[in-house]
Amino acid sequence: MLKEHEIQIRVRYVEADPMGYLHHSNYFTYFEMGRTELFRASGGNYREIEEAGQFFVITKLECRFLAPARYDDELTLRTKISRATMAKLEHEYELRRGDTILTTAKSVLACVDSTGRVQRMPDSVVDAD
Amino acid sequence: MLKEHEIQIRVRYVEADPMGYLHHSNYFTYFEMGRTELFRASGGNYREIEEAGQFFVITKLECRFLAPARYDDELTLRTKISRATMAKLEHEYELRRGDTILTTAKSVLACVDSTGRVQRMPDSVVDAD
Amino acid sequence: MLKEHEIQIRVRYVEADPMGYLHHSNYFTYFEMGRTELFRASGGNYREIEEAGQFFVITKLECRFLAPARYDDELTLRTKISRATMAKLEHEYELRRGDTILTTAKSVLACVDSTGRVQRMPDSVVDAD
Amino acid sequence: MLKEHEIQIRVRYVEADPMGYLHHSNYFTYFEMGRTELFRASGGNYREIEEAGQFFVITKLECRFLAPARYDDELTLRTKISRATMAKLEHEYELRRGDTILTTAKSVLACVDSTGRVQRMPDSVVDAD
Repeated sequence: MLKEHEIQIRVRYVEADPMGYLHHSNYFTYFEMGRTELFRASGGNYREIEEAGQFFVITKLECRFLAPARYDDELTLRTKISRATMAKLEHEYELRRGDTILTTAKSVLACVDSTGRVQRMPDSVVDAD
Repeated sequence: MLKEHEIQIRVRYVEADPMGYLHHSNYFTYFEMGRTELFRASGGNYREIEEAGQFFVITKLECRFLAPARYDDELTLRTKISRATMAKLEHEYELRRGDTILTTAKSVLACVDSTGRVQRMPDSVVDAD
Repeated sequence: MLKEHEIQIRVRYVEADPMGYLHHSNYFTYFEMGRTELFRASGGNYREIEEAGQFFVITKLECRFLAPARYDDELTLRTKISRATMAKLEHEYELRRGDTILTTAKSVLACVDSTGRVQRMPDSVVDAD
Repeated sequence: MLKEHEIQIRVRYVEADPMGYLHHSNYFTYFEMGRTELFRASGGNYREIEEAGQFFVITKLECRFLAPARYDDELTLRTKISRATMAKLEHEYELRRGDTILTTAKSVLACVDSTGRVQRMPDSVVDAD
Protein backbone atom coordinates (compact mmCIF):
# COMPACT_ATOMS: atom_id res chain seq x y z
CA MET A 1 0.00 0.00 0.00
CA LEU A 2 1.26 3.46 -0.96
CA LYS A 3 1.81 5.77 1.97
CA GLU A 4 1.37 9.05 0.15
CA HIS A 5 -0.35 10.47 -2.91
CA GLU A 6 -1.13 13.83 -4.50
CA ILE A 7 -4.13 14.99 -6.51
CA GLN A 8 -5.11 18.27 -8.19
CA ILE A 9 -8.49 19.81 -7.41
CA ARG A 10 -10.13 22.80 -9.10
CA VAL A 11 -12.43 24.74 -6.72
CA ARG A 12 -16.01 24.69 -8.03
CA TYR A 13 -18.27 27.74 -8.04
CA VAL A 14 -20.88 25.98 -5.88
CA GLU A 15 -18.19 25.29 -3.26
CA ALA A 16 -17.39 28.97 -2.68
CA ASP A 17 -19.39 31.02 -0.17
CA PRO A 18 -20.50 34.68 -0.08
CA MET A 19 -16.97 35.70 0.97
CA GLY A 20 -15.79 34.10 -2.28
CA TYR A 21 -13.87 31.53 -0.22
CA LEU A 22 -14.05 27.75 -0.47
CA HIS A 23 -16.52 26.94 2.34
CA HIS A 24 -14.82 25.10 5.21
CA SER A 25 -17.16 22.08 5.00
CA ASN A 26 -15.92 21.33 1.49
CA TYR A 27 -12.33 20.71 2.58
CA PHE A 28 -13.49 17.47 4.16
CA THR A 29 -14.91 16.39 0.82
CA TYR A 30 -11.52 17.06 -0.74
CA PHE A 31 -9.81 14.96 1.93
CA GLU A 32 -12.23 12.12 1.15
CA MET A 33 -11.25 12.36 -2.51
CA GLY A 34 -7.62 12.24 -1.43
CA ARG A 35 -8.24 8.97 0.47
CA THR A 36 -10.15 7.44 -2.46
CA GLU A 37 -7.38 8.28 -4.93
CA LEU A 38 -4.55 7.21 -2.60
CA PHE A 39 -6.32 3.87 -2.27
CA ARG A 40 -6.85 3.60 -6.05
CA ALA A 41 -3.19 4.47 -6.71
CA SER A 42 -2.31 1.54 -4.43
CA GLY A 43 -4.38 -0.86 -6.53
CA GLY A 44 -7.44 -0.82 -4.24
CA ASN A 45 -10.98 0.32 -4.91
CA TYR A 46 -13.13 1.73 -2.15
CA ARG A 47 -16.41 1.09 -4.00
CA GLU A 48 -15.58 -2.63 -4.14
CA ILE A 49 -14.89 -2.65 -0.40
CA GLU A 50 -18.36 -1.22 0.19
CA GLU A 51 -19.88 -3.71 -2.24
CA ALA A 52 -18.24 -6.45 -0.14
CA GLY A 53 -20.09 -5.07 2.91
CA GLN A 54 -17.37 -3.08 4.66
CA PHE A 55 -17.58 0.66 5.23
CA PHE A 56 -15.07 3.22 6.50
CA VAL A 57 -16.46 5.76 8.94
CA ILE A 58 -14.80 8.89 10.27
CA THR A 59 -14.35 8.89 14.03
CA LYS A 60 -12.22 12.02 14.43
CA LEU A 61 -11.30 15.08 12.37
CA GLU A 62 -8.95 17.98 13.02
CA CYS A 63 -8.25 20.80 10.60
CA ARG A 64 -6.32 24.07 10.68
CA PHE A 65 -7.20 26.73 8.15
CA LEU A 66 -4.18 28.88 7.38
CA ALA A 67 -5.18 30.70 4.20
CA PRO A 68 -8.38 30.69 2.09
CA ALA A 69 -8.92 29.11 -1.32
CA ARG A 70 -11.16 30.78 -3.91
CA TYR A 71 -13.38 29.76 -6.82
CA ASP A 72 -11.37 28.41 -9.77
CA ASP A 73 -8.14 28.02 -7.77
CA GLU A 74 -6.19 24.92 -8.73
CA LEU A 75 -5.08 23.18 -5.55
CA THR A 76 -2.78 20.30 -4.69
CA LEU A 77 -3.80 17.89 -1.96
CA ARG A 78 -1.25 15.55 -0.42
CA THR A 79 -2.81 12.62 1.46
CA LYS A 80 -0.63 10.46 3.66
CA ILE A 81 -1.34 7.38 5.77
CA SER A 82 0.26 8.17 9.10
CA ARG A 83 -0.90 5.02 10.94
CA ALA A 84 -2.68 1.79 9.96
CA THR A 85 -3.73 -0.85 12.49
CA MET A 86 -6.40 -3.56 12.61
CA ALA A 87 -8.64 -1.08 14.42
CA LYS A 88 -8.07 2.24 12.71
CA LEU A 89 -6.57 4.15 9.84
CA GLU A 90 -5.05 7.59 10.33
CA HIS A 91 -4.43 10.07 7.52
CA GLU A 92 -2.74 13.44 7.33
CA TYR A 93 -3.52 16.06 4.70
CA GLU A 94 -1.85 19.14 3.34
CA LEU A 95 -3.68 21.35 0.85
CA ARG A 96 -1.61 23.87 -1.11
CA ARG A 97 -2.03 26.49 -3.82
CA GLY A 98 1.40 26.64 -5.39
CA ASP A 99 3.78 26.89 -2.43
CA THR A 100 1.21 28.32 -0.02
CA ILE A 101 -0.15 25.81 2.50
CA LEU A 102 -3.87 26.49 2.93
CA THR A 103 -4.90 23.76 5.38
CA THR A 104 -3.40 20.88 7.32
CA ALA A 105 -5.62 18.16 8.74
CA LYS A 106 -5.79 14.71 10.32
CA SER A 107 -8.52 12.07 10.30
CA VAL A 108 -9.14 8.76 11.99
CA LEU A 109 -11.26 6.09 10.30
CA ALA A 110 -12.76 2.89 11.63
CA CYS A 111 -14.24 0.01 9.62
CA VAL A 112 -17.86 -1.11 10.20
CA ASP A 113 -20.26 -3.59 8.59
CA SER A 114 -23.63 -2.63 7.11
CA THR A 115 -25.23 -2.71 10.59
CA GLY A 116 -22.60 -0.33 11.97
CA ARG A 117 -20.68 -2.96 14.00
CA VAL A 118 -16.93 -2.34 14.16
CA GLN A 119 -14.81 -4.70 11.99
CA ARG A 120 -11.10 -5.23 11.58
CA MET A 121 -9.61 -3.26 8.69
CA PRO A 122 -9.53 -5.15 5.33
CA ASP A 123 -6.16 -6.75 4.53
CA SER A 124 -5.91 -4.65 1.37
CA VAL A 125 -5.69 -1.60 3.61
CA VAL A 126 -3.44 -2.82 6.41
CA ASP A 127 -0.12 -4.04 5.10
CA ALA A 128 1.49 -7.08 6.73
CA ASP A 129 4.88 -5.38 6.62
CA MET B 1 -53.34 12.28 0.76
CA LEU B 2 -52.97 16.05 1.06
CA LYS B 3 -52.57 17.81 -2.27
CA GLU B 4 -50.68 20.86 -1.03
CA HIS B 5 -48.39 21.90 1.82
CA GLU B 6 -46.18 24.81 2.84
CA ILE B 7 -42.89 24.88 4.73
CA GLN B 8 -40.54 27.65 5.87
CA ILE B 9 -36.85 27.41 4.96
CA ARG B 10 -34.02 29.66 6.17
CA VAL B 11 -31.19 29.97 3.59
CA ARG B 12 -27.94 28.62 5.05
CA TYR B 13 -24.58 30.34 4.61
CA VAL B 14 -23.09 27.29 2.88
CA GLU B 15 -25.91 27.37 0.32
CA ALA B 16 -25.06 30.88 -0.91
CA ASP B 17 -22.47 31.42 -3.65
CA PRO B 18 -19.90 34.15 -4.33
CA MET B 19 -22.68 36.40 -5.67
CA GLY B 20 -24.31 36.06 -2.25
CA TYR B 21 -27.23 34.24 -3.91
CA LEU B 22 -28.68 30.87 -3.00
CA HIS B 23 -26.92 28.59 -5.53
CA HIS B 24 -29.34 27.22 -8.12
CA SER B 25 -28.54 23.57 -7.31
CA ASN B 26 -29.84 24.04 -3.76
CA TYR B 27 -33.38 24.86 -4.87
CA PHE B 28 -33.79 21.20 -5.83
CA THR B 29 -32.86 20.21 -2.29
CA TYR B 30 -35.56 22.55 -1.01
CA PHE B 31 -38.12 20.96 -3.35
CA GLU B 32 -37.13 17.53 -2.00
CA MET B 33 -37.77 18.81 1.54
CA GLY B 34 -41.14 20.07 0.34
CA ARG B 35 -42.07 16.59 -0.94
CA THR B 36 -40.88 14.91 2.28
CA GLU B 37 -42.94 17.26 4.47
CA LEU B 38 -46.03 17.15 2.23
CA PHE B 39 -45.90 13.36 2.56
CA ARG B 40 -45.39 13.55 6.34
CA ALA B 41 -48.29 16.01 6.71
CA SER B 42 -50.44 13.38 4.91
CA GLY B 43 -49.51 10.74 7.48
CA GLY B 44 -46.85 9.05 5.34
CA ASN B 45 -43.13 8.66 5.95
CA TYR B 46 -40.68 8.52 3.07
CA ARG B 47 -37.94 6.84 5.13
CA GLU B 48 -40.30 3.94 5.87
CA ILE B 49 -41.06 3.57 2.16
CA GLU B 50 -37.35 3.24 1.48
CA GLU B 51 -36.95 0.79 4.37
CA ALA B 52 -39.70 -1.28 2.69
CA GLY B 53 -37.56 -1.38 -0.47
CA GLN B 54 -39.21 1.25 -2.64
CA PHE B 55 -37.43 4.37 -3.84
CA PHE B 56 -38.63 7.50 -5.62
CA VAL B 57 -36.37 8.74 -8.40
CA ILE B 58 -36.58 12.00 -10.31
CA THR B 59 -37.14 11.54 -14.04
CA LYS B 60 -37.72 15.16 -15.04
CA LEU B 61 -37.15 18.62 -13.58
CA GLU B 62 -38.02 22.09 -14.81
CA CYS B 63 -37.34 25.30 -12.94
CA ARG B 64 -37.69 29.03 -13.66
CA PHE B 65 -35.63 31.44 -11.59
CA LEU B 66 -37.41 34.78 -11.34
CA ALA B 67 -35.57 36.49 -8.47
CA PRO B 68 -32.62 35.49 -6.26
CA ALA B 69 -32.68 34.42 -2.61
CA ARG B 70 -29.84 35.40 -0.24
CA TYR B 71 -28.18 34.03 2.88
CA ASP B 72 -30.44 34.20 5.92
CA ASP B 73 -33.61 34.91 3.90
CA GLU B 74 -36.65 33.16 5.30
CA LEU B 75 -38.53 31.56 2.41
CA THR B 76 -41.89 29.86 1.98
CA LEU B 77 -42.11 26.81 -0.27
CA ARG B 78 -45.50 25.59 -1.47
CA THR B 79 -45.42 22.00 -2.77
CA LYS B 80 -48.42 20.64 -4.65
CA ILE B 81 -49.18 17.24 -6.17
CA SER B 82 -50.40 18.06 -9.64
CA ARG B 83 -50.80 14.45 -10.86
CA ALA B 84 -50.54 10.99 -9.27
CA THR B 85 -50.84 7.78 -11.29
CA MET B 86 -49.62 4.20 -10.83
CA ALA B 87 -46.57 5.11 -12.93
CA LYS B 88 -45.61 8.60 -11.82
CA LEU B 89 -46.04 11.43 -9.39
CA GLU B 90 -45.92 15.04 -10.52
CA HIS B 91 -45.30 17.99 -8.21
CA GLU B 92 -45.36 21.73 -8.68
CA TYR B 93 -43.42 24.14 -6.50
CA GLU B 94 -43.55 27.85 -5.76
CA LEU B 95 -40.85 29.44 -3.62
CA ARG B 96 -41.55 32.91 -2.21
CA ARG B 97 -39.92 35.53 0.02
CA GLY B 98 -42.91 37.38 1.42
CA ASP B 99 -45.06 38.12 -1.64
CA THR B 100 -42.21 37.86 -4.14
CA ILE B 101 -42.17 34.63 -6.16
CA LEU B 102 -38.54 33.54 -6.54
CA THR B 103 -38.89 30.26 -8.46
CA THR B 104 -41.55 28.03 -9.92
CA ALA B 105 -40.78 24.42 -10.76
CA LYS B 106 -42.17 21.02 -11.74
CA SER B 107 -40.87 17.52 -11.15
CA VAL B 108 -41.81 14.02 -12.22
CA LEU B 109 -40.97 11.03 -10.00
CA ALA B 110 -41.06 7.31 -10.72
CA CYS B 111 -40.88 4.48 -8.19
CA VAL B 112 -38.13 1.83 -8.41
CA ASP B 113 -36.98 -1.13 -6.30
CA SER B 114 -33.47 -1.47 -4.88
CA THR B 115 -32.19 -2.82 -8.21
CA GLY B 116 -33.60 0.19 -10.08
CA ARG B 117 -36.54 -1.66 -11.73
CA VAL B 118 -39.66 0.46 -12.14
CA GLN B 119 -42.49 -0.33 -9.69
CA ARG B 120 -46.06 0.88 -9.34
CA MET B 121 -46.43 3.75 -6.88
CA PRO B 122 -47.20 2.71 -3.27
CA ASP B 123 -50.92 2.90 -2.33
CA SER B 124 -50.10 5.39 0.41
CA VAL B 125 -49.05 7.80 -2.33
CA VAL B 126 -51.71 7.22 -4.97
CA ASP B 127 -55.20 7.78 -3.62
CA ALA B 128 -57.96 5.45 -4.74
CA ASP B 129 -60.35 8.36 -5.17
CA MET C 1 -15.81 31.03 -29.02
CA LEU C 2 -15.95 27.23 -29.03
CA LYS C 3 -19.44 25.85 -29.41
CA GLU C 4 -18.85 22.50 -27.69
CA HIS C 5 -16.57 20.92 -25.12
CA GLU C 6 -16.25 17.68 -23.14
CA ILE C 7 -14.98 17.08 -19.62
CA GLN C 8 -14.54 13.96 -17.46
CA ILE C 9 -16.06 13.93 -13.96
CA ARG C 10 -15.58 11.31 -11.25
CA VAL C 11 -18.63 11.00 -8.95
CA ARG C 12 -17.63 11.86 -5.36
CA TYR C 13 -18.82 9.87 -2.35
CA VAL C 14 -20.46 12.93 -0.80
CA GLU C 15 -22.49 13.44 -3.99
CA ALA C 16 -24.19 10.03 -3.78
CA ASP C 17 -27.38 9.59 -1.75
CA PRO C 18 -28.76 6.69 0.35
CA MET C 19 -29.82 4.89 -2.86
CA GLY C 20 -26.16 4.99 -3.88
CA TYR C 21 -27.09 7.28 -6.78
CA LEU C 22 -25.62 10.65 -7.66
CA HIS C 23 -28.17 13.02 -6.08
CA HIS C 24 -30.15 14.92 -8.71
CA SER C 25 -29.13 18.35 -7.34
CA ASN C 26 -25.48 17.60 -8.12
CA TYR C 27 -26.03 17.28 -11.86
CA PHE C 28 -26.53 21.04 -11.98
CA THR C 29 -23.14 21.51 -10.37
CA TYR C 30 -21.63 19.33 -13.10
CA PHE C 31 -23.33 21.42 -15.78
CA GLU C 32 -21.83 24.55 -14.19
CA MET C 33 -18.38 22.94 -14.40
CA GLY C 34 -19.10 22.16 -18.04
CA ARG C 35 -19.85 25.83 -18.73
CA THR C 36 -16.73 27.01 -16.87
CA GLU C 37 -14.47 24.63 -18.80
CA LEU C 38 -16.10 25.32 -22.18
CA PHE C 39 -15.44 29.00 -21.56
CA ARG C 40 -11.83 28.32 -20.47
CA ALA C 41 -11.23 26.14 -23.55
CA SER C 42 -12.34 29.14 -25.64
CA GLY C 43 -9.74 31.37 -24.00
CA GLY C 44 -12.11 33.01 -21.53
CA ASN C 45 -12.13 32.98 -17.73
CA TYR C 46 -15.34 33.22 -15.79
CA ARG C 47 -13.63 34.36 -12.58
CA GLU C 48 -12.21 37.38 -14.42
CA ILE C 49 -15.68 38.25 -15.73
CA GLU C 50 -16.96 38.29 -12.14
CA GLU C 51 -13.97 40.33 -11.01
CA ALA C 52 -14.92 42.84 -13.73
CA GLY C 53 -18.37 43.11 -12.12
CA GLN C 54 -20.48 40.92 -14.41
CA PHE C 55 -22.28 37.80 -13.23
CA PHE C 56 -24.13 35.05 -15.06
CA VAL C 57 -27.37 33.93 -13.44
CA ILE C 58 -29.52 30.95 -14.34
CA THR C 59 -33.03 31.91 -15.42
CA LYS C 60 -34.28 28.49 -16.59
CA LEU C 61 -33.28 24.84 -16.20
CA GLU C 62 -34.70 21.64 -17.67
CA CYS C 63 -33.28 18.18 -17.08
CA ARG C 64 -34.31 14.63 -17.98
CA PHE C 65 -32.87 11.80 -15.91
CA LEU C 66 -32.66 8.64 -18.01
CA ALA C 67 -30.34 6.41 -15.95
CA PRO C 68 -28.59 6.86 -12.59
CA ALA C 69 -24.88 7.48 -11.94
CA ARG C 70 -23.18 5.98 -8.89
CA TYR C 71 -20.27 6.80 -6.59
CA ASP C 72 -16.90 6.49 -8.35
CA ASP C 73 -18.41 6.34 -11.86
CA GLU C 74 -16.35 8.20 -14.41
CA LEU C 75 -18.67 10.30 -16.52
CA THR C 76 -18.34 12.37 -19.67
CA LEU C 77 -20.18 15.67 -19.90
CA ARG C 78 -20.66 17.37 -23.25
CA THR C 79 -21.58 21.06 -22.97
CA LYS C 80 -22.77 22.92 -26.04
CA ILE C 81 -23.78 26.53 -26.64
CA SER C 82 -27.05 26.26 -28.50
CA ARG C 83 -27.84 29.99 -28.65
CA ALA C 84 -25.99 33.20 -27.75
CA THR C 85 -27.58 36.64 -27.98
CA MET C 86 -27.00 40.00 -26.30
CA ALA C 87 -29.66 39.06 -23.75
CA LYS C 88 -29.10 35.38 -23.03
CA LEU C 89 -26.92 32.34 -23.39
CA GLU C 90 -28.42 28.89 -23.89
CA HIS C 91 -26.54 25.65 -23.25
CA GLU C 92 -27.37 22.00 -23.85
CA TYR C 93 -25.80 19.16 -21.86
CA GLU C 94 -25.43 15.43 -22.32
CA LEU C 95 -23.97 13.35 -19.50
CA ARG C 96 -22.81 9.82 -20.37
CA ARG C 97 -21.15 6.83 -18.73
CA GLY C 98 -19.48 5.10 -21.66
CA ASP C 99 -22.16 4.95 -24.34
CA THR C 100 -25.08 5.22 -21.93
CA ILE C 101 -26.73 8.64 -21.83
CA LEU C 102 -27.64 9.40 -18.21
CA THR C 103 -29.12 12.89 -18.48
CA THR C 104 -29.87 15.55 -21.05
CA ALA C 105 -30.47 19.14 -20.00
CA LYS C 106 -30.83 22.75 -21.11
CA SER C 107 -30.15 26.00 -19.32
CA VAL C 108 -30.68 29.69 -20.01
CA LEU C 109 -28.37 32.29 -18.48
CA ALA C 110 -28.67 36.05 -18.23
CA CYS C 111 -25.94 38.54 -17.31
CA VAL C 112 -26.36 40.92 -14.36
CA ASP C 113 -24.20 43.48 -12.54
CA SER C 114 -23.39 43.31 -8.83
CA THR C 115 -26.74 44.91 -7.96
CA GLY C 116 -28.65 42.30 -9.99
CA ARG C 117 -29.53 44.61 -12.91
CA VAL C 118 -29.62 42.87 -16.30
CA GLN C 119 -26.65 43.65 -18.59
CA ARG C 120 -25.82 42.76 -22.16
CA MET C 121 -23.63 39.67 -22.48
CA PRO C 122 -19.86 40.36 -22.52
CA ASP C 123 -18.34 40.46 -26.03
CA SER C 124 -16.03 37.57 -25.10
CA VAL C 125 -19.14 35.42 -24.80
CA VAL C 126 -21.21 36.58 -27.76
CA ASP C 127 -19.33 36.27 -31.03
CA ALA C 128 -19.86 38.98 -33.61
CA ASP C 129 -20.03 36.40 -36.41
CA MET D 1 -24.58 37.89 24.59
CA LEU D 2 -26.10 34.48 25.29
CA LYS D 3 -23.52 31.81 26.02
CA GLU D 4 -25.55 28.80 24.88
CA HIS D 5 -28.40 27.94 22.54
CA GLU D 6 -30.15 24.88 21.11
CA ILE D 7 -31.70 24.30 17.70
CA GLN D 8 -33.52 21.36 16.10
CA ILE D 9 -32.31 20.09 12.71
CA ARG D 10 -33.99 17.50 10.48
CA VAL D 11 -31.45 15.53 8.38
CA ARG D 12 -32.12 16.10 4.67
CA TYR D 13 -32.05 13.30 2.09
CA VAL D 14 -29.30 15.03 0.10
CA GLU D 15 -27.11 15.15 3.23
CA ALA D 16 -27.05 11.37 3.68
CA ASP D 17 -24.47 9.26 1.88
CA PRO D 18 -24.57 5.73 0.36
CA MET D 19 -24.24 4.24 3.87
CA GLY D 20 -27.47 6.08 4.71
CA TYR D 21 -25.52 8.19 7.22
CA LEU D 22 -25.36 11.97 7.44
CA HIS D 23 -22.10 12.69 5.59
CA HIS D 24 -19.40 13.97 7.93
CA SER D 25 -18.88 17.21 5.96
CA ASN D 26 -22.47 18.27 6.70
CA TYR D 27 -21.96 18.38 10.46
CA PHE D 28 -19.87 21.52 9.96
CA THR D 29 -22.79 23.12 8.17
CA TYR D 30 -24.99 22.31 11.16
CA PHE D 31 -22.45 23.89 13.51
CA GLU D 32 -22.51 27.03 11.36
CA MET D 33 -26.32 27.13 11.69
CA GLY D 34 -25.85 26.75 15.45
CA ARG D 35 -23.56 29.81 15.52
CA THR D 36 -25.95 31.87 13.36
CA GLU D 37 -28.93 31.06 15.59
CA LEU D 38 -27.03 31.56 18.87
CA PHE D 39 -26.07 35.01 17.59
CA ARG D 40 -29.66 35.77 16.50
CA ALA D 41 -31.01 34.62 19.87
CA SER D 42 -28.63 37.16 21.45
CA GLY D 43 -30.10 39.96 19.36
CA GLY D 44 -27.33 39.98 16.74
CA ASN D 45 -27.48 39.29 13.02
CA TYR D 46 -24.56 37.78 11.18
CA ARG D 47 -25.73 38.98 7.76
CA GLU D 48 -25.64 42.58 9.01
CA ILE D 49 -22.10 42.08 10.27
CA GLU D 50 -21.06 40.95 6.79
CA GLU D 51 -22.93 43.87 5.21
CA ALA D 52 -20.88 46.14 7.50
CA GLY D 53 -17.71 44.62 6.01
CA GLN D 54 -16.65 42.16 8.71
CA PHE D 55 -16.43 38.42 8.15
CA PHE D 56 -15.89 35.48 10.49
CA VAL D 57 -13.53 32.82 9.22
CA ILE D 58 -12.82 29.41 10.70
CA THR D 59 -9.21 28.92 11.74
CA LYS D 60 -9.50 25.56 13.52
CA LEU D 61 -11.98 22.69 13.72
CA GLU D 62 -12.03 19.50 15.77
CA CYS D 63 -14.82 16.94 15.74
CA ARG D 64 -15.40 13.51 17.29
CA PHE D 65 -18.00 11.27 15.67
CA LEU D 66 -19.48 8.93 18.27
CA ALA D 67 -22.61 7.61 16.54
CA PRO D 68 -24.13 8.18 13.08
CA ALA D 69 -27.21 10.22 12.18
CA ARG D 70 -29.53 9.11 9.37
CA TYR D 71 -31.88 10.68 6.84
CA ASP D 72 -34.99 12.16 8.50
CA ASP D 73 -33.56 11.98 12.04
CA GLU D 74 -34.52 14.96 14.15
CA LEU D 75 -31.43 16.18 15.95
CA THR D 76 -30.70 18.69 18.69
CA LEU D 77 -27.61 20.86 18.42
CA ARG D 78 -26.31 22.72 21.45
CA THR D 79 -23.90 25.55 20.58
CA LYS D 80 -21.91 27.21 23.33
CA ILE D 81 -19.40 30.07 23.36
CA SER D 82 -16.50 28.74 25.36
CA ARG D 83 -14.19 31.74 24.90
CA ALA D 84 -14.50 35.22 23.37
CA THR D 85 -11.59 37.62 23.07
CA MET D 86 -10.74 40.56 20.81
CA ALA D 87 -8.83 38.13 18.59
CA LYS D 88 -10.94 35.00 18.49
CA LEU D 89 -14.21 33.31 19.26
CA GLU D 90 -14.32 29.70 20.41
CA HIS D 91 -17.44 27.52 20.26
CA GLU D 92 -18.25 24.04 21.50
CA TYR D 93 -20.95 21.86 19.99
CA GLU D 94 -22.88 18.80 21.05
CA LEU D 95 -25.22 17.10 18.58
CA ARG D 96 -27.76 14.62 20.00
CA ARG D 97 -30.62 12.40 18.83
CA GLY D 98 -32.75 12.10 21.94
CA ASP D 99 -30.30 11.28 24.71
CA THR D 100 -27.63 9.84 22.40
CA ILE D 101 -24.67 12.14 21.79
CA LEU D 102 -23.67 11.80 18.12
CA THR D 103 -20.81 14.30 17.85
CA THR D 104 -18.89 16.77 19.96
CA ALA D 105 -16.84 19.51 18.34
CA LYS D 106 -14.91 22.74 18.83
CA SER D 107 -14.18 25.61 16.49
CA VAL D 108 -12.09 28.76 16.54
CA LEU D 109 -13.12 31.80 14.49
CA ALA D 110 -11.23 34.97 13.63
CA CYS D 111 -12.65 38.19 12.19
CA VAL D 112 -11.35 39.60 8.88
CA ASP D 113 -12.27 42.49 6.58
CA SER D 114 -13.22 42.06 2.93
CA THR D 115 -9.54 41.90 1.91
CA GLY D 116 -8.87 39.11 4.43
CA ARG D 117 -6.96 41.27 6.95
CA VAL D 118 -7.51 40.26 10.59
CA GLN D 119 -9.77 42.62 12.60
CA ARG D 120 -10.75 42.81 16.24
CA MET D 121 -14.05 41.06 16.98
CA PRO D 122 -17.15 43.32 16.76
CA ASP D 123 -18.37 44.64 20.13
CA SER D 124 -21.73 42.93 19.60
CA VAL D 125 -19.87 39.61 19.80
CA VAL D 126 -17.40 40.27 22.61
CA ASP D 127 -19.13 41.34 25.80
CA ALA D 128 -17.50 44.07 27.86
CA ASP D 129 -18.25 42.20 31.08
